[in-house]
Amino acid sequence: MTRQRLSLFDTTLRDGAQTTGVDFSLDDKRQIAAMLDDLGVDYIEGGYPGANPLDTAFFATRPDIRARFAAFGMTRRHGRSVENDPGVAALLDSRSDAVVFVAKSWDYQVRVALRSTEEDNLQAIAQSVAAAVARGKEAAVDCEHFFDGFKANEAYALACAKAALEAGARWIVLCDTNGGTLPHEIERIVRRVAEGIPGENLGIHAHDDTGQAVANSLAAVRAGARQIQGSLNGLGERCGNANLTTIIPTLLLKPEFSERFEIGVTLEKLTHLTRISHALDELLNRAPDRHAPYVGASAFATKAGIHASAVLTDSRTYEHVSPESIGNQRRVLVSDQAGKSNIISELARLGVALDKDDPRLSRLLEEVKLKEAQGYAYEGADASFFLLAKRIMGEAPHYFHVERYSVAVDRRFARNGGLEDAGAEAIVKLRVNGETRISAAEGNGPVNALDLALRKDLGSYQRFIEDIKLVDYRVRVFQGGTDAVTRVLVECADSKGERWSTVGVSANVIDASFEALIDAIVYKLLREGAKGDNSL
Amino acid sequence: MTRQRLSLFDTTLRDGAQTTGVDFSLDDKRQIAAMLDDLGVDYIEGGYPGANPLDTAFFATRPDIRARFAAFGMTRRHGRSVENDPGVAALLDSRSDAVVFVAKSWDYQVRVALRSTEEDNLQAIAQSVAAAVARGKEAAVDCEHFFDGFKANEAYALACAKAALEAGARWIVLCDTNGGTLPHEIERIVRRVAEGIPGENLGIHAHDDTGQAVANSLAAVRAGARQIQGSLNGLGERCGNANLTTIIPTLLLKPEFSERFEIGVTLEKLTHLTRISHALDELLNRAPDRHAPYVGASAFATKAGIHASAVLTDSRTYEHVSPESIGNQRRVLVSDQAGKSNIISELARLGVALDKDDPRLSRLLEEVKLKEAQGYAYEGADASFFLLAKRIMGEAPHYFHVERYSVAVDRRFARNGGLEDAGAEAIVKLRVNGETRISAAEGNGPVNALDLALRKDLGSYQRFIEDIKLVDYRVRVFQGGTDAVTRVLVECADSKGERWSTVGVSANVIDASFEALIDAIVYKLLREGAKGDNSL
Repeated sequence: MTRQRLSLFDTTLRDGAQTTGVDFSLDDKRQIAAMLDDLGVDYIEGGYPGANPLDTAFFATRPDIRARFAAFGMTRRHGRSVENDPGVAALLDSRSDAVVFVAKSWDYQVRVALRSTEEDNLQAIAQSVAAAVARGKEAAVDCEHFFDGFKANEAYALACAKAALEAGARWIVLCDTNGGTLPHEIERIVRRVAEGIPGENLGIHAHDDTGQAVANSLAAVRAGARQIQGSLNGLGERCGNANLTTIIPTLLLKPEFSERFEIGVTLEKLTHLTRISHALDELLNRAPDRHAPYVGASAFATKAGIHASAVLTDSRTYEHVSPESIGNQRRVLVSDQAGKSNIISELARLGVALDKDDPRLSRLLEEVKLKEAQGYAYEGADASFFLLAKRIMGEAPHYFHVERYSVAVDRRFARNGGLEDAGAEAIVKLRVNGETRISAAEGNGPVNALDLALRKDLGSYQRFIEDIKLVDYRVRVFQGGTDAVTRVLVECADSKGERWSTVGVSANVIDASFEALIDAIVYKLLREGAKGDNSL
Repeated sequence: MTRQRLSLFDTTLRDGAQTTGVDFSLDDKRQIAAMLDDLGVDYIEGGYPGANPLDTAFFATRPDIRARFAAFGMTRRHGRSVENDPGVAALLDSRSDAVVFVAKSWDYQVRVALRSTEEDNLQAIAQSVAAAVARGKEAAVDCEHFFDGFKANEAYALACAKAALEAGARWIVLCDTNGGTLPHEIERIVRRVAEGIPGENLGIHAHDDTGQAVANSLAAVRAGARQIQGSLNGLGERCGNANLTTIIPTLLLKPEFSERFEIGVTLEKLTHLTRISHALDELLNRAPDRHAPYVGASAFATKAGIHASAVLTDSRTYEHVSPESIGNQRRVLVSDQAGKSNIISELARLGVALDKDDPRLSRLLEEVKLKEAQGYAYEGADASFFLLAKRIMGEAPHYFHVERYSVAVDRRFARNGGLEDAGAEAIVKLRVNGETRISAAEGNGPVNALDLALRKDLGSYQRFIEDIKLVDYRVRVFQGGTDAVTRVLVECADSKGERWSTVGVSANVIDASFEALIDAIVYKLLREGAKGDNSL
């Protein structure tokens, strides 16, 4: 049987921006677009140019992606022509490949929310689509509230979809905007729509308000739709959008879908999915959902004794797919081969060869487990993992020894509450090249001061570290309260464009930062081939 | 149309105990059983008596519940008689109303995992069920791996179900043990089974490994099954069991189900569901899922300006059911995309009335936008938003004035890198009740030390703040580098169970923490009705 192509449309950067607690920066958007493109989605919806300065800036240059870059916005407003609508102009002028117009398709909404007429709404759809096509852009129409609209006035909902198609829209996306439609209703309605509009032009946009966004998306595909809109990790307003991190493995690994459909994500890229999912959470400083299907830390975890032995005897008993296929791993309360092979492959990626029978591998595995139990996370800190391996392999030289450091923050406030004094100080005393050196620095905050003092005078090593730039610094606190365990992730870059990440863990944010900063410096020295200090 | 009765079978205390990170105490089990009973489920599966001391103790006395109390365990083992099987004896001797026998129904598993024969397995099912019935207990059989078994050997899977029914089992529960079956497969297979076994004897037990446990449960009901097994908040092994917290409102509020079925949970009890869901998380010290359908804090949250005005005009646009029906509430988020309507509705939720023509509202809106541009985020910090509003309205008294604080971290390291000295110190000097007071404290880290020093002596206000507990502390850094802007979010709770969140922003993590901690204290004083200090 010839397999049909299913299109994946990602809205992490648009509908995902509506997630409570999520605030993308421009750099976040660029990084996420690159991650999505690498994964292999077909469309990346970047935002709503013209609606806010961030999205306008993001659409001012086209990111270097293979996927189609889509801009979202409204059809021309009631009472305006397409040419005279600044919203439409912002869409057409954006550096996008595709424009997605959101349009009402529920007659009640057209009257009440738009205060427009049914006929004008149809014209707005047709004219907006035609304008985008005339500008050489692919056009899509998100039919808002389509399912509620269809139940209320089937003919009008269908007329909206037809108007879009006839004006040249590539995709007519049926949106379950308030997320309340059930899978069997979706299936029935999409089948009806597909009688008039070819399935290869139909998309589905589902929300998780009844916990069924994934089921709704797959039901629509079974009924004929050929595009799925969703987001990484199910980001999105209220309960979130359909979770592509769940849908993609289902499409690739379940024969019911993989035998009938093909998608842009390859089986090889699928093995990156767990890492990508966690990297997104890391970027947004959200705790990953341990119980997420496929990619959650517990998705292949077995706790019960009987289940654990069963899963080791025959993994099919408690694993519906293999954890390796999505780059995840089985977790059972016994030391297992899966752990070793993961470590070997991660080391190979970092250019370190270690044989699976080398006793140092078992020690590394033990150490990683011990450290992760303490709160370390090597997934987002490959330089610290590299150093840990090098230390256990006896291949990490000593360069310098910090004897002490201290940081102080002192604040005085005026009667009106204004800050009279600002800044923080740090002192670092260390031995290097057989001498003791002491450096002090002021910074905006204690960690900045410590970082500056630490990198001020490393003796003969100073020339190797001059070009280190701290590009990211993130803090996560576990177990609640200021006395909880703090994990700091630091990302550095150098003038060659290399980037590396390190991790530190402590009850104290300063200590955790110190540990990560030291790892960042030592990693750079090691990579530069600096010789160890024999006097230490 | 006469509505049919659907039975709800809760397995929070049995399958839910397999959740990674969940460890019930005996008291937890008793409290959760009481919560479930109050909600109105039909069965409460308490655990596996005989398998561990906790469950044996829990089944030694019957909890005072209206629901049927069910004990879980295996059918008699291969090579033993029912009378000589201590596992079966533990079940029959337990103070349960019902016994649930888990039985293999996949021929492959019978041979490989049980090392038994197909025929002996059928006899084990029949004899075990008969023994329970003879002891006056209701019997049920969980057919493990039923769907995989059915696909592999339909006749044998059906024979297992029939053996249970003929021996007198009240319920034959079809289990999707590894969670990999898709909704349309569930529907097709349950329909086939229901041709031979009455639907009123069929149950469904689904897991969330493809994110479709809810859809799978509802598909089974549509195909004829009349019992749903699930857990509160979707607790359970790996990705969890079918989430009753999602299924119950769907059954009660969606006409597709509510017109055809009735359940033991009333509409009145449904309004307690959000509270029950959060209380369970509280008991287990888990962070509630903000995005959970129906009961999540964000389930009815709207962020975007256009959506916000639409949802306030006509709630149907973005609300598929009314938040009040499950005891949840609408939240219109205050963010830089906010308009006046967002702010008014958020203020109203916090008990502050402000007219839309009041000039202070425009000032508040300006101030929110300015602060958010600096990095503040009020959508996760309602107490800071409340204080900001009160300050602009001139209704925030002055309680105390911090004149200065200082924090210091001092570290010395041994030659081997080991830390010789740990801890951090803080000093806070403040004016309160016309006097200057100075307090010092040690903590695990600088923020903890500052928090302790700050709350050590607030003079006459001390009694109001004694019961403040810091329950969460989060840090996010923007714009990269240790000299970037740091946002700290602090969540506090008091002995009344009230929770409030505050925010602080600075280049310095200590200053940002200080600001959030001060807001947390001032909010509490304001809520307690403490009088301002006129000497300031």
